[in-house]
Amino acid sequence: MTATPIIFDCDPGVDDAVALLLAFASPELELLAITTTAGNVSGTLTARNARLIRQLAGREDVPVHIGAERPLVREPVEAGAFHGESGLGALPIAEPALPVTSGDAVQAIIDIVRARPEGSVTLVVTGPMTNAALALQRAPDLAARLKAIVAMGGARSEGGNITASAEFNIFADPHAADVVCRSGVTIVAFGLDATHQVRATEARIAAIEALGNPLADAAASLLRFSREVERQVVHGLDAPLHDPCPIAWLIRPSLFELRPCRLDVETGSPLTMGHTAVEFRAPEPNAQWAVKADADGLFALLTERLA
Amino acid sequence: MTATPIIFDCDPGVDDAVALLLAFASPELELLAITTTAGNVSGTLTARNARLIRQLAGREDVPVHIGAERPLVREPVEAGAFHGESGLGALPIAEPALPVTSGDAVQAIIDIVRARPEGSVTLVVTGPMTNAALALQRAPDLAARLKAIVAMGGARSEGGNITASAEFNIFADPHAADVVCRSGVTIVAFGLDATHQVRATEARIAAIEALGNPLADAAASLLRFSREVERQVVHGLDAPLHDPCPIAWLIRPSLFELRPCRLDVETGSPLTMGHTAVEFRAPEPNAQWAVKADADGLFALLTERLA
Amino acid sequence: MTATPIIFDCDPGVDDAVALLLAFASPELELLAITTTAGNVSGTLTARNARLIRQLAGREDVPVHIGAERPLVREPVEAGAFHGESGLGALPIAEPALPVTSGDAVQAIIDIVRARPEGSVTLVVTGPMTNAALALQRAPDLAARLKAIVAMGGARSEGGNITASAEFNIFADPHAADVVCRSGVTIVAFGLDATHQVRATEARIAAIEALGNPLADAAASLLRFSREVERQVVHGLDAPLHDPCPIAWLIRPSLFELRPCRLDVETGSPLTMGHTAVEFRAPEPNAQWAVKADADGLFALLTERLA
Amino acid sequence: MTATPIIFDCDPGVDDAVALLLAFASPELELLAITTTAGNVSGTLTARNARLIRQLAGREDVPVHIGAERPLVREPVEAGAFHGESGLGALPIAEPALPVTSGDAVQAIIDIVRARPEGSVTLVVTGPMTNAALALQRAPDLAARLKAIVAMGGARSEGGNITASAEFNIFADPHAADVVCRSGVTIVAFGLDATHQVRATEARIAAIEALGNPLADAAASLLRFSREVERQVVHGLDAPLHDPCPIAWLIRPSLFELRPCRLDVETGSPLTMGHTAVEFRAPEPNAQWAVKADADGLFALLTERLA
Repeated sequence: MTATPIIFDCDPGVDDAVALLLAFASPELELLAITTTAGNVSGTLTARNARLIRQLAGREDVPVHIGAERPLVREPVEAGAFHGESGLGALPIAEPALPVTSGDAVQAIIDIVRARPEGSVTLVVTGPMTNAALALQRAPDLAARLKAIVAMGGARSEGGNITASAEFNIFADPHAADVVCRSGVTIVAFGLDATHQVRATEARIAAIEALGNPLADAAASLLRFSREVERQVVHGLDAPLHDPCPIAWLIRPSLFELRPCRLDVETGSPLTMGHTAVEFRAPEPNAQWAVKADADGLFALLTERLA
Repeated sequence: MTATPIIFDCDPGVDDAVALLLAFASPELELLAITTTAGNVSGTLTARNARLIRQLAGREDVPVHIGAERPLVREPVEAGAFHGESGLGALPIAEPALPVTSGDAVQAIIDIVRARPEGSVTLVVTGPMTNAALALQRAPDLAARLKAIVAMGGARSEGGNITASAEFNIFADPHAADVVCRSGVTIVAFGLDATHQVRATEARIAAIEALGNPLADAAASLLRFSREVERQVVHGLDAPLHDPCPIAWLIRPSLFELRPCRLDVETGSPLTMGHTAVEFRAPEPNAQWAVKADADGLFALLTERLA
Repeated sequence: MTATPIIFDCDPGVDDAVALLLAFASPELELLAITTTAGNVSGTLTARNARLIRQLAGREDVPVHIGAERPLVREPVEAGAFHGESGLGALPIAEPALPVTSGDAVQAIIDIVRARPEGSVTLVVTGPMTNAALALQRAPDLAARLKAIVAMGGARSEGGNITASAEFNIFADPHAADVVCRSGVTIVAFGLDATHQVRATEARIAAIEALGNPLADAAASLLRFSREVERQVVHGLDAPLHDPCPIAWLIRPSLFELRPCRLDVETGSPLTMGHTAVEFRAPEPNAQWAVKADADGLFALLTERLA
Repeated sequence: MTATPIIFDCDPGVDDAVALLLAFASPELELLAITTTAGNVSGTLTARNARLIRQLAGREDVPVHIGAERPLVREPVEAGAFHGESGLGALPIAEPALPVTSGDAVQAIIDIVRARPEGSVTLVVTGPMTNAALALQRAPDLAARLKAIVAMGGARSEGGNITASAEFNIFADPHAADVVCRSGVTIVAFGLDATHQVRATEARIAAIEALGNPLADAAASLLRFSREVERQVVHGLDAPLHDPCPIAWLIRPSLFELRPCRLDVETGSPLTMGHTAVEFRAPEPNAQWAVKADADGLFALLTERLA
C-alpha cells in the first residue's frame, strides 16, 4: 500500500491537535507539510502549537509553514474560549525547539502540489480555508492538480455552532470557503452533521488515557479539556470531535457515509454569513458531504494509533 | 374545559386539508374562521379547497375568508407538484355549495381578534404568512392582542425542502415571516425538524382507511397521495405530515417538545432566502421551536378523531 | 382640455403641503382623492396635515383617506427634523373641521381606479410607496389599470440624502418601492437628480410672499421653514423642492427632461438599502427618470397658481 | 523638492498607459516599481503592456512585477471592448525586450514599503485593488506604513459605468476594495465624479499630437482610440480620462478639489455589487473623495510633460 500524500492545513486548536496526533501516528498518510492559519487562536499561536505537537510526536521531519494571519476579507473571529488561552487547552506550553520552516504556507502549498504528480496530493483543511483560497487565487491550476480538499467545516442538519446558521471554520472566513467551493476542486466536507455524531465520552477518553504513553496522555488531556468546556457551555453534552474526522476518513473511509451535493457558502447576508447550503438534489455536485459517522470505530482507530 | 378559539389561516394543499379535518373534528378547538392564502396552489383554489373540506365535514357554520393572492414582496412560488393540480391530490373536486364569506381575510383576522378578549385568540398559520403579516402591518396592536401565532414553517436541523436552506412556507413569503418574527407576537413554530419525524407510513394510512367513513376516506386519500409523490421524489421515504402538527399541538401539547429560541428569517440573500435562523442561545427568545414529535401519538389522535 | 384625474398619495410634510397647494390651485388636475401614509411624520399627523391644507385651500370636496401606519416590512423611519414637530414647519396647527373619509387609503385607491376607465387615473406618490404597494399586492390588476405612478423618490447622480446611497422616500419603504418597480405599472420618477435642481432661494420665496394672500403666505412659510432647516444642516444651500416636482410635471411637462430607464430598488443589503439602481442602457425600461428640471419655470408656475 | 516615491499598480489598459506616460515624464514622482493586475485585460497582457510603455519611455530602470491573475473572491470581469484586444487600443504591439522582474507584485509591494521609511511610500492603484488587498491581508502593517493609497475607482454622483450603480475598477474586485477601505490606510479616491469632468476632446488630443514626438504620438493614439470607442458606445460624448487623474493629483494637487468622506463598498448584494457608498457626513472619514477636476489644467499638464 502506498501512503496518501497530504498537506495538513490547520489552526491548532485542541481538536486540530488530536487530528495531528492521529495523522502523525498513521502510516497510511504521508505528511508532506503542515501549514497553519489564524482561526481557533491567532496565527502565531497556531504555528507554535503545530510545532509543539510535531515535537511531541517526534516528527520534526515534517515542515511547518506559517500562513494567513487574517481572513481573506472579513475581520478576524477567534474561538479562544473553546481552546484555552494557548489554543491547546491544559497542555503544558513551551517554545518549540525548531522554528517554522521558511516560505509562507500559501506558496508552500502551491510549490508542493506542483512538484508532485497531478491528482496525487490531498489538502486537508481543519481551520478556516484562508490558505487554500489564497493558493487557488494565486495558482488557479491547483484546482485541477489537487486530488481533493478534505475539510472539516459547515453544517446542514445541526444548525450552526458559532451562530444559529453557521459553523465556526466557515464563518471565520466565508469568502475563502466560497472561493474553494467555486474553484472546481473536488471537495470532501465533514460538517457538524457528522462531527456531532462523534462525542468524546468519559469512557472513550479513559480508554485513551489507559494507554499510558505521552502521546495518549496528551490526547486525553486535550479531549478532556474540550469535554469540560463543552459541558459547561452546552449543558451536559460530551464534546464533538471535529477535526480528526477528515483524517480518520483518509485512513479508513468506511467510518463515514458521504453523499454528493452542491455546496455553496453564504457571503452576502449578515444573518446567515458563513452558512453552508448543501443541496443533495443538484444536477452537478461539487462536493461529498459526510452524513454519518461511526463514532465507536473512529475512537477505536484513535486509541489503536495512540497505543 | 373551554375550547381554544382559533383562526385557521391555510393554503390547502393536501396536508392543510388533513389539518382542517382534524380541527373540525376536535372539540378542544373553537374554529372562529378559516382564512386562505395563495401558497401550495393559487389563492382561488385554496379558498375553494377550504370550502370543500368544510362541506365534507359538515361545518358550514365556520366562515371562509379569501385572502392574499400574492406574497408581500416577492414573486409567487407554487408547489403544485406536491399537491396535485387541484391542490387536494386525488380527491374528487366539485364547486362547493357555499361561496366565500364576504370581507377579506386580513380584515377578518383583525376584526375577530379585536372583538374577542385580549390574549384569547390563537392564529394558526399552515401556509405562507402573508395574511398574518398584512394584518400586523395594518393593525400592529394585533401582536399584543393575539395569544399566539402557531405555525408550520421553517427548518433548522433538516436543511430545507424547496431549496437547500429554506422550507417552502417561509420561502414562499420570507418578508411576511420576517414581519411576524419582528412583531413581538408570541410564536410557536413547527418546522421540518418536527414534521419530518411524523411520517405517513402505509400502516398508519391503512389504520385511518379502516375506519370506513367519508372523512377517514378523504384523509386516507390525501395521505396516500402525499406518500406516493414523496416516494417518487425523495426515493422511498414516507411523506412527512406537516400542517396537522400545529393543530395537534393545540389539542394535545404533550405530543411535542418545544425549545425557546430567537427566530429570524433571511430576506436579503438569494442563496439562503427564506432560511430560518433558530438561535437557542439568544437571551431574548421570540418563539418556541418544536424539536421533537411523537409520531405514534399524533397518528393515534388523528385516527381517533376521524373515527 | 380635460383635467387629468389623479389620486394624490402623500405624507405631509412641508414639501408635500406645497405640492398639495399647487395641485388644489391647478385646473389641469382633477383631484379624485388624497391618501396619506406614515413617512415624514406619523400616519396620524400626515392625515391631519392633509386635511389642514385641504381646509386652507377650501377644497373639502376632495376626500382624504388615511393609509399605512407602517412600512411593508422594515421598521418605521421618520424625518421629523426636516418638517418640524407637526410636519408642517411653522404653520399654525389646529384640528381640521372635517374628519378623514371612511375607508382605508389602500382600498380607496383600488376602488377609485377600478371605477374609472382603464388607463385614465394617475397615482401621484410623494411619500413612501407603502399604500401603492399594498394596493398592487391586493389588486395586481391595478398595474395595468393605472395610467402611471408619478412619484418623488430615489437618487442617481446626487448620492442619497438619508444615507450615502439612498433617498428618504425609498429608504423609508424599500420593499414597497421594489413591489412598484416590478409590478409592470408605468413609472415616472423625480429623484434628487431633478429635485436638487429646484432650490427655494430667498428671492423665489419672497416673490410668493409678495402675493399677499393666505395660500401664498402658507406656501412661503413652508418654504422658508425648509430653507432655514436645510441651511443649518447642509451649510448654506437653499432647500430643494422635492414633492411639487411630480405635480408640476403633470401640469406642465416641459419643465422637465426625462430619460427611459430600468429602475430597481435595493432591498437586500444594509449598506445600500433603498438605493435606486437607474440603468439607462436597459433594453426594457420600466420607468421614466427625471434628469433635468427648469427651476425658474417651476417657481413661476407655483407663483402664478398661488396668486 | 524631493520626488514623491510611488508604486504604480495598474492594469494597462488605454488610460493606464497614458497615466504611465505622465508618471514617467514627471520628475515630481519617484517610480519605485510598477505592479500589474488583471483588470481591463488579462494579467498576462497588462504585465506586457506595462513593459511596452516602459520601453517606449526608455525607463527600463523601473521594475515591473506581475501580480494577481484573478480577483480576491469573485469571478473575473474584463473590459476588453474599451481597450482593444491588446489592451492598448491601436498602438503597435511587440514583445518587450525585457521580461517582468522576478518576485510577485504583492510581495514586491510589501518589501518595498517595508524597506522605506514609514509613511513615505504612496501606492497608486488604477485597476482593481486585488494586489493592494492581498498585500494588506498578508502584511496588515502596510496600512500604517503606507503614506496613502491613491486610486482611480468608484462613483457617487455619476451612477456607475459597468452597472447602474458600480464603476468598473471597484466592480471588478469589490472585496479587495472593501479590504482596502476597512484597513485603516489613508485613501484618496478619484471616481467617476471627477474623471467624467476630464474629457479628451479632439482639440485636446490634437494639441498633444502636434508635439510630434513618439511619446506624444503614443498618447494621442491611445486617447483617440478611447474617444472613438466612447463616442460609439455613449452617443457622442468625448472619452473621460480616468487613470491619469491620481497621477496628475500627485504632481499638481491644485487640479482637484477633494472632500473627506467615509467610503464603503457593497459586497453583499448582486444588484449593487461594487457600489461605493460615499458619506460626506460621517464623523470618522477614511478617505478623500475627488469632487472637482480642472480639465484644462490637467490636459495642459499632460501636454507639457509629453513635450
